[in-house]
Amino acid sequence: MNQSVAQSTNQPTNRLSLNQQTTKRWSLPEVLDGARRHGLESVGLWREPVAEVGLDKARRLVEESGLRVSSLCRGGFLTASDERSRRLALDDNRRAIDEAATLGAPCLVMVVGGLPEEARTDLAGARERVTSAIAELAPYAAGRGVQIALEPLHPMFCADRAVLSTLRQALDLAERYPAGVVGVVVDTYHLWWDPDLFTQIERAAGRIASFQICDWLTPIPADALIGRGMPGDGHIDFRPIVEAVLATGYTGDIEVEIFNQEVWDADPDEVVGLMVERCQPLLRPPAADGR
Amino acid sequence: MNQSVAQSTNQPTNRLSLNQQTTKRWSLPEVLDGARRHGLESVGLWREPVAEVGLDKARRLVEESGLRVSSLCRGGFLTASDERSRRLALDDNRRAIDEAATLGAPCLVMVVGGLPEEARTDLAGARERVTSAIAELAPYAAGRGVQIALEPLHPMFCADRAVLSTLRQALDLAERYPAGVVGVVVDTYHLWWDPDLFTQIERAAGRIASFQICDWLTPIPADALIGRGMPGDGHIDFRPIVEAVLATGYTGDIEVEIFNQEVWDADPDEVVGLMVERCQPLLRPPAADGR
Repeated sequence: MNQSVAQSTNQPTNRLSLNQQTTKRWSLPEVLDGARRHGLESVGLWREPVAEVGLDKARRLVEESGLRVSSLCRGGFLTASDERSRRLALDDNRRAIDEAATLGAPCLVMVVGGLPEEARTDLAGARERVTSAIAELAPYAAGRGVQIALEPLHPMFCADRAVLSTLRQALDLAERYPAGVVGVVVDTYHLWWDPDLFTQIERAAGRIASFQICDWLTPIPADALIGRGMPGDGHIDFRPIVEAVLATGYTGDIEVEIFNQEVWDADPDEVVGLMVERCQPLLRPPAADGR
Repeated sequence: MNQSVAQSTNQPTNRLSLNQQTTKRWSLPEVLDGARRHGLESVGLWREPVAEVGLDKARRLVEESGLRVSSLCRGGFLTASDERSRRLALDDNRRAIDEAATLGAPCLVMVVGGLPEEARTDLAGARERVTSAIAELAPYAAGRGVQIALEPLHPMFCADRAVLSTLRQALDLAERYPAGVVGVVVDTYHLWWDPDLFTQIERAAGRIASFQICDWLTPIPADALIGRGMPGDGHIDFRPIVEAVLATGYTGDIEVEIFNQEVWDADPDEVVGLMVERCQPLLRPPAADGR
């Protein structure tokens, strides 16, 4: 059971991280135990299952596990146009930043929010409100030593989830701040289609806070939110993207985050086994020059 | 019944065009008759319903109607990686170009195709094959006086329908040719989310072959292909986009193309009535300077 604990030190030997949404049925202790059992050294956590066991207990469990926390999901939802909702959202984000600090997560992933009902066609306004909210949150996050990780979501989620739609747009916003304060998330599912992707990954050097991988499946399922696939099951060519991210000097973990009913219905142990089998080879240096 | 025929001359007084997919239940004669009854001067046609009545008869019906044809949908599907499929697709596109010429359509809308089963993770390769195919088709289209209209589709269709995903990418390809030979389609449904949209519309001046409008609805329906809405029912702010396109000097028609089961189930006459009520005001000059 403890085969990988000895490796979980400052020098990571395995950068593959299990995002706990991938094994949604597992409680936090089960996720930590399962990750270790499969030789992983890192997990990506979500606020809700952390809250289920309680923040302090979660912190203790993570410390005892010896695992790294690659990220905490998620803050955001910053697009409400009325003052009261805006203030509530900012308060909630400050709590999320605190939780990330407590858990030792290097970054808080931000899904910035879509178009609110009261301003449902005002895309430009929603984008401006995100910009303002980040300006309020950045100093707070910096004070807690937590990097804000702006996540551009696939444009299909622009209306209802995140008005941040491309890596370029996320970088335009992040670059107003020091890289250690506001970074970006590179998630293959959201970005794989972008003709500008490799240019923007190169531009993101030093500012990639989180790197997440999962596959794009067709057809898109009835619930578009859960159409993500195990790498290898869909349309994404992962190796060039992984290589491009590593070529920027990114030293963090590579999280596998899959929202998919079939994956959730499967035995979580088999899911993690398959994930390791499919993804571990992607993380090996592709060439002898160690690029 | 003939109220608008007198207007259907070289000087359009009404640039709103009914794409025949919006009234899918109507045959071609019904579409032509319905468009005129509602004071329209232009229709967007599809190859399949044209083939149902026969190309020559369709040409005669259109001529007799006095209506303009704003575009013919569609060519494309140029991403197959095996030689035989590639050749068949090119042949089919040449036929589509001929049909557009026969019908007097100024352009053939191209949905370029997604990732073929035999190369389902090779996005870069599929994009290269599109580039090569356009190089083969452009001289043929130029010879027939038909403009190729490259349509960037929403990135959610990148895997299964069109690897051309942004207006910028479409322009990068189109600009290899004279504007009259290869243009682009601006479709609000596909492009509304793009932070780069207004910059690219300005860049597209003189090269916009077709302008189509419909709305983005939430939630995305189980069949993502038919989630398009009547303008006003969804999340798109049309006026700034219409103004930006008109500001480029675009003189063509503005087509309303809606794929939506509820719209298809409704009385087509009511659909066209609502479409005129919702869209006609968008086409009026917004300011006294006649911009």
